[in-house]
Formats: sequence, C-alpha cells, structure tokens
Amino acid sequence: MTAVRLTLEYDGTGFRGWARQPGERTVEGVLREALDAVLPSWSGLAVAGRTDAGVHATGQVASLDAGGGPPLERLAEALNTALPHDVAVIAADEAPHGFHARFSATARSYRYVVLPRRERAPLRARRALWWPRRADLASLEACAAALPGEHDFTAFTPTETQHEVLRREIRAAAWERRGDELHFTVTADSFLRHMVRTLVGTMLETRPDAFAALLEGRPRSEAGSTAPPWGLYLERVEYEGVWRPQGA
Amino acid sequence: MTAVRLTLEYDGTGFRGWARQPGERTVEGVLREALDAVLPSWSGLAVAGRTDAGVHATGQVASLDAGGGPPLERLAEALNTALPHDVAVIAADEAPHGFHARFSATARSYRYVVLPRRERAPLRARRALWWPRRADLASLEACAAALPGEHDFTAFTPTETQHEVLRREIRAAAWERRGDELHFTVTADSFLRHMVRTLVGTMLETRPDAFAALLEGRPRSEAGSTAPPWGLYLERVEYEGVWRPQGA
Repeated sequence: MTAVRLTLEYDGTGFRGWARQPGERTVEGVLREALDAVLPSWSGLAVAGRTDAGVHATGQVASLDAGGGPPLERLAEALNTALPHDVAVIAADEAPHGFHARFSATARSYRYVVLPRRERAPLRARRALWWPRRADLASLEACAAALPGEHDFTAFTPTETQHEVLRREIRAAAWERRGDELHFTVTADSFLRHMVRTLVGTMLETRPDAFAALLEGRPRSEAGSTAPPWGLYLERVEYEGVWRPQGA
Repeated sequence: MTAVRLTLEYDGTGFRGWARQPGERTVEGVLREALDAVLPSWSGLAVAGRTDAGVHATGQVASLDAGGGPPLERLAEALNTALPHDVAVIAADEAPHGFHARFSATARSYRYVVLPRRERAPLRARRALWWPRRADLASLEACAAALPGEHDFTAFTPTETQHEVLRREIRAAAWERRGDELHFTVTADSFLRHMVRTLVGTMLETRPDAFAALLEGRPRSEAGSTAPPWGLYLERVEYEGVWRPQGA
C-alpha cells in the first residue's frame, strides 16, 4: 500500500457537504465511488476539513492508503475520469509515512467572498454573498485586525456545538478588495463549526469595537448572522515542512 | 407608453439561449413572464444579441415600450423580484424616442475565457473553456492582430448560415492574461452566428499565418473547431452618443 495525498477542488453547490450520508450526494461519497472504480484496494480515507453543504474548496486535502491501480503520476487523471464535473483531483502525491490529512494538518486557510452591489449577480449567484447593503472596507479591516491571536469563539459557533474546546488561535486574518468583490482570508490551526461564516456575518453587521468584545467568550446570541455557505472556500491546508503538492 | 432600455446579466447554463421557443427555458421567455408580472402593459420587446444556448451575458441590452407599473427607478428591482436567480436586470433606463436594442446598436463586444490548466476546474466548469493542451499567448496575440478591419468571415460561421452578407468589420480584438486565464475580447458592429466561438477555436488550433489567410472568404471546412458556448460572454452593446446606462 502507498500513502497518498490528494488535493481536491470542488463546487459545493450540488453537494450536501463533504461527509458521506445515506441517500445524499456528498463529496466524500463521489470520491469513494471514484476510488472504488480506479483502485483495486484502498483504505483509511481522511480529510483535512469536513466542509458543510454548499461550501466550496480550491485546496481540500484527503489522505488514503492505495494498493495497485495506475502509477501515482497518472492517478489524478484516472480519478478525474471517474469523478463528476463538479469535483476534481488537482494533485495526487505520495505522502510521508503516517501522514493523515486531518491530524497532520498544522493550519487551514479559508476565503469568504462578498459582492457589495445593488443588483443581483447571476453569474456569481453560488460563488459569492450578494450584499446590497452598505459594506465599509475600513470597518471590516478594523474587525479583522482584532482576530489574530488566541480567543474564545463561543459566540461564533452554534450553541448546540459538540466542540469541547472553544478557544482557537488565529494566525492571520484580512479583508481586501478584489475587483468589485471584498475577500476575507483567515488562517488558523483549526476552526469551530460555522466559525468563518459567523465571523463574516458579524463583521458585516457590527462595529469594530463591539466585534472585538465578542472574541472573549460571549454567548452566541450576541454575535451576528451566519453568512451563507456559497461565499466560503477552503483554500489551503498546511502540513509540517515545506513540502508542497505537485502541480498546486 | 415609455421607451425603456434594460441592461441584463445572465448565467447561460440553464437557458436554451435568448430566443423564446415553445417548451424550452429561454432568457426571453423568463423575461416576458417577469414583464407580464410587473407591467400592466408592454410591447415591442427587442434584444441586442440573440445569444445561443449556454452563452452568458454581463451587458445584454433589451428595449420595450412600458405602460404603467412601478416608476423607472424601481423597475429593475421589481423585475428582479419576478426573475429567477440566473438572470437579473442590472439597469432600467428611459430610452430615447425610437430606440431599438438591436437596430440602434452600433457595436457589440464579447469576451471569451480560456483556462489553460492540466486539471479540470470544477468552480469554473460552466464559466470558461478548460484547455489542458498548450496555449501560446504570443501566437494567440498574433492571430488577434490580424482581425481588425473588414474581412469575409465565411470560414467562421456554419455553412448552412442564413446570413446574406458574410463580411463584418472588426473594431478591436485582443488576448490578455487574467490570473490563470486567457481572455479574448472582440468588438464589431455585428457578428455572424458562432463567429466569436469559431474564431477562438481556430486561434487555439492554428498558426497565425494560416489563421490570417482564413479571413478572406475561405470555406468553413478550413477553419477550426467552434469553441463551446460556456466560455462566451456578451459584455457590452454600444449605441450612438456617450449615453451610458445608470448603474452599469
């Protein structure tokens, strides 16, 4: 068996998220079908970020042990032939011994795309949050400046959460203008459920001083809306060392 | 009745093109339903470019005469409430007397997006032509340089075309790199059926000297493939004067 690391891109629109569920179309589900079609034997599929329904990925990472099948340099192409149009393997690499997509990850980076515009934007309907209200980049930047460091994110995850530890350490967070869009990028070792989306919804609705106060364990009811999934992209997962996937 | 000019954006993926057809979902069809829902009376709907199935628009223009209904400054919003998610009115303006979206147009501009990349790109599957083969920007630029001026585009439209005149005057044509994409933009008074898509397909497959020779009335069989519709965007329609739509 060979330890394999897959880098995946997908359009989350047509999936009920990553995790396999009976009777639902999920990214894990279609990937398992493609692995069954291409590899004589495989086991131990793990994923870096279990994205929710509708969330996209440009750099999701999965790991597995593969036995037989095409040589590694042709594995991505073989899997893509078996995968539907809305998910693709953009790199397949041999992973170090003991590599686990989730437990070996040292950081995850997400991007959230907001489109401040009066009129609906059909070509980005499932790619960005349409925001016909006022969006003040300076205010958003001031909110993001409060994020780096360790905080208690109780206010930014559902009350019925299953997380035991609600503190997380943000390594970097920033807003920037990209054409007519506003992009929020954030990197942390890991995130709570709905955390990026609730940070975005709250930053759009709250003044910077009130936002910063929410980072010290305030209840969920004091934060703002959870922004919709279709503006969110899992962009990059980092691992120990400078090793980078081929082709990414 | 008020002469109205509408500027429209749409995702062509879910439409059998612009023109109304019985039993088919078309942009004209859903726009007519929205006009029926919002305006007590209207007539004379015309459009600048009858886009084919799958072709997108960011600046399509339609004209009509409207009687009653919401004031012009709220017409776009009212129509958007009645339109599906994949089409939107981005501006509604009073048009000059006698304005006709098609016959008054002096130029149309299209954009074609090519994504040269080894791996499929699920997030742009219906937004760009995925091109895993070699794409040489210098060669594409040399092809485009041959386009401005008047030529016979017989090679770039289906043989069974209904066009009587096969000469067209190209005002501007260029390729440029945009991130990881290559964009072709072209402006002319009008275009033959499939002309932009066949120009793109041929430029991708042909050397510049052979491409230039095709512009003088060669038969269709000597040109290259017709590139797929999902890379094509009707971007702008120009009219006499410097008048620009509100909000565009």
